[in-house]
Amino acid sequence: MDAYTDLIQHFREFRLLESIGAVVGWDQHTYMPTKGANHRAEQMGYLAKHGHEKLTSPKIGELLGQLDGAKLDDTQTVNVREIRRTYDRAVKMPSKLVEEIAKTVSQAQNVWAEARKKSDFPAFAPWLDKIVTLKREEAKAVGYKDSPYDALLDEYEPGATAAEITRVFAELRADLIPLVGAIAASGQKPRKDILTREYAIDRQHIFGQAAAAAIGFDFQAGRLDTTVHPFCSGIGPGDCRLTTRYHPRELNQGLFGILHEAGHGIYEQGLDHAHFGTPVGSFCSLGIHESQSRLWENQVGRGRAFWEHFFPRLRQTFPGTLDDVSLDDFIFSANNVEKSFIRVEADEATYNMHIILRFEMEQALMRGDLKPSDVPGAWNETFKRMLDLTPANDAQGCLQDIHWSMGGLGYFPTYTLGNLYAAQFMQQARKDLGDLDADFRVGQFGRLKGWLNEKIHRQGQRQRAGELCKRVTGQALSHKPLIAYLRGKYGPLYGI
Amino acid sequence: MDAYTDLIQHFREFRLLESIGAVVGWDQHTYMPTKGANHRAEQMGYLAKHGHEKLTSPKIGELLGQLDGAKLDDTQTVNVREIRRTYDRAVKMPSKLVEEIAKTVSQAQNVWAEARKKSDFPAFAPWLDKIVTLKREEAKAVGYKDSPYDALLDEYEPGATAAEITRVFAELRADLIPLVGAIAASGQKPRKDILTREYAIDRQHIFGQAAAAAIGFDFQAGRLDTTVHPFCSGIGPGDCRLTTRYHPRELNQGLFGILHEAGHGIYEQGLDHAHFGTPVGSFCSLGIHESQSRLWENQVGRGRAFWEHFFPRLRQTFPGTLDDVSLDDFIFSANNVEKSFIRVEADEATYNMHIILRFEMEQALMRGDLKPSDVPGAWNETFKRMLDLTPANDAQGCLQDIHWSMGGLGYFPTYTLGNLYAAQFMQQARKDLGDLDADFRVGQFGRLKGWLNEKIHRQGQRQRAGELCKRVTGQALSHKPLIAYLRGKYGPLYGI
Repeated sequence: MDAYTDLIQHFREFRLLESIGAVVGWDQHTYMPTKGANHRAEQMGYLAKHGHEKLTSPKIGELLGQLDGAKLDDTQTVNVREIRRTYDRAVKMPSKLVEEIAKTVSQAQNVWAEARKKSDFPAFAPWLDKIVTLKREEAKAVGYKDSPYDALLDEYEPGATAAEITRVFAELRADLIPLVGAIAASGQKPRKDILTREYAIDRQHIFGQAAAAAIGFDFQAGRLDTTVHPFCSGIGPGDCRLTTRYHPRELNQGLFGILHEAGHGIYEQGLDHAHFGTPVGSFCSLGIHESQSRLWENQVGRGRAFWEHFFPRLRQTFPGTLDDVSLDDFIFSANNVEKSFIRVEADEATYNMHIILRFEMEQALMRGDLKPSDVPGAWNETFKRMLDLTPANDAQGCLQDIHWSMGGLGYFPTYTLGNLYAAQFMQQARKDLGDLDADFRVGQFGRLKGWLNEKIHRQGQRQRAGELCKRVTGQALSHKPLIAYLRGKYGPLYGI
Repeated sequence: MDAYTDLIQHFREFRLLESIGAVVGWDQHTYMPTKGANHRAEQMGYLAKHGHEKLTSPKIGELLGQLDGAKLDDTQTVNVREIRRTYDRAVKMPSKLVEEIAKTVSQAQNVWAEARKKSDFPAFAPWLDKIVTLKREEAKAVGYKDSPYDALLDEYEPGATAAEITRVFAELRADLIPLVGAIAASGQKPRKDILTREYAIDRQHIFGQAAAAAIGFDFQAGRLDTTVHPFCSGIGPGDCRLTTRYHPRELNQGLFGILHEAGHGIYEQGLDHAHFGTPVGSFCSLGIHESQSRLWENQVGRGRAFWEHFFPRLRQTFPGTLDDVSLDDFIFSANNVEKSFIRVEADEATYNMHIILRFEMEQALMRGDLKPSDVPGAWNETFKRMLDLTPANDAQGCLQDIHWSMGGLGYFPTYTLGNLYAAQFMQQARKDLGDLDADFRVGQFGRLKGWLNEKIHRQGQRQRAGELCKRVTGQALSHKPLIAYLRGKYGPLYGI
């Protein structure tokens, strides 16, 4: 066997093992009985350990060495480049550090869950301190040019740098602040009672599933189940699992949550399955992944054209519930903009302020400019400055997200990157495909999905995110399409 | 680390990997989307291959060598004996054959499911052919004294032989035929309309789940889901999955199916979990496993005392449906004996004829006396001879069972062994515990469950099945307790 084929086989086995972990992980969050938790932890521990051994096996290093400078075609070049990246990162991590991080975050998540319940930051502070210390060690082990934060970012958004993101986020913020200010000052407000009526959960499920199918999620190659913290898990070719949660008096959570996860799912289903387990058959970055969920949830799913088709169907699904609500009322209500405390409940515009705050704070933690014990003060001060609100307690503030307790520093920016990419992609799709709203008005989403499949999904990791963006839209990532989209939507709604 | 501890750790990792396969396998039969089948086959193939590598690693051979003649306590002796047995069998199997079988049966199960739907044996025939060829290779690789079939049997029923089983089955058949004949000739017949009324599936589920919980299945450590071919999967400590299927106009299938699988589940939940992954913490044999399901389904669940408690509750669950039915009517109807086509729907008496047919046919396939393509003809001919009926199509005949598509040749006899062991154990439990029916009449099953926990479940593999039977009942396995039980039950019902 030649070195390339051998390398692909080894790496693919590592991904196959990961996909087995994805099934087991999905089960853990959907159907596992409570008393199975300890045994499940053992299973997951074994898979993680065995996977890391597989990825860092000297054989992969040897094969990569043999392929250094070898003549390769385009696909092979991409695969070798990205496998090398993944391997290099993995072998740079001392296994003692890997183990230490795994142990720490496993305990820290439980501490965080308790601390959030009681809004008790001091209980979590020593754990955050330990995690930040470990992540700084990780950055040192992995290496970086400018900022230790880059080393963390690189895991989620290969090739991105804190400096670049800081620049785009600053531009975005400069335009967002007056927009959000104008909305707050507007006398026009949506009716807030519309989405908080009695919506029977079984009917929410039926409607959400039908909407996900309509936009192009293939239910013969996927499922939708309920869980506590919604996620999408692409298990492999022909198998992608969406999850959501329903609230009997909040339509938003279930409905837009499903469209969001279905966007992730359509990406997973659109990957080049012949290349499963190799970089050209894998998603590009978390920012690009998030662009696909945000695109379907927001750009499409909160748009007028979408609801021209779906609103009569929503009314039929909940007979009598929406008799007093016009299409305009409903759309306005689904696009309510309002400063609020909780990131996952924030609207499309203010959401990005929540991310910018976290991004700044994480960098300060990594640089050592902010002590973990000072996080609550810094959080509340920044929150006040950015969103003009002061959290009543830390549960409503710096304790709200699970990410830090999981060691996921560097992850947050991918959410706003997703919003930016989504707007830029959608602007281009509208240029390339003409009147997409005419499609949506009659419940047709196939042309858009086909465009995304070709331009983004089937590209896999042929380009890094920034290059993919240039290739698809002809432009580097910019805050302008998102701002233009938000202005275009909120202008008529709020009369601004 | 001493050799014994080291051996246990290695073997336990192999079982942990198997338990990961159990989660993935359960998912395949419950929630996996149809298009995920090929990828799932790859995952299962990888797990099987990797598991086989783990089990057959030279390290285990070395450790077993070091432990040869070592001074060990009782538990250690059992563990080393049974690990050696498993290891010896596994090292005889070439890993290419193991992988080939795993991949083939994963796909064959889907082909079988489609073929059964369409009653299209030719679609399944090449897969059966491939499976029989692979199983003959397996028997050759594993080795045997008298019959290649023994090599397969040994996997499910360690130490059992085709010759022994043939003898017990012949004795059973000799007594069964006149009994079934007398029943057929009796003028007393149950009302057949009772169990084939409208029974809403959601209420069947509620009743079945409550009954399973009442007899002792712990739903915090397990679940009940629906599938095509019901099974029970013991994933590990605290996690055991029951599955069933419901028919809206057949109470039998769901209700007794659940009691059956719950019997398996109670065994799994009753194992010594401190010894998870080692022989003393594992089930004894499939025949013993089946004795536990049959015991709860038939010996308990079709008895008068059980229904004295549950019949009023069944009536309440399906209001109005059973107003014209007396307890006697219901019990007679749940114990209807009638020659029929489908094994899983057969009554306790004729059921064993279905097994004897399969046992003979599998031996002929393994000897090469029967070509897989000739199975439908041979099936129908034997069926006519044994049960005096001719299946209308292959879905009703040789395509009805999943087992062959799973590569499970040698498995069927364990069902009738289960019936035999169940009768013999229950006879002993009634001797040891006194009036068990008085317990059942008031919905109490704890004394019986406790007895089974102690005498059978927590024994693990300390004894092989035959020895366990002698230890618990003082007698070798015999057809007599089953015949006595059947006569005792059917005598009054049919006036024979």
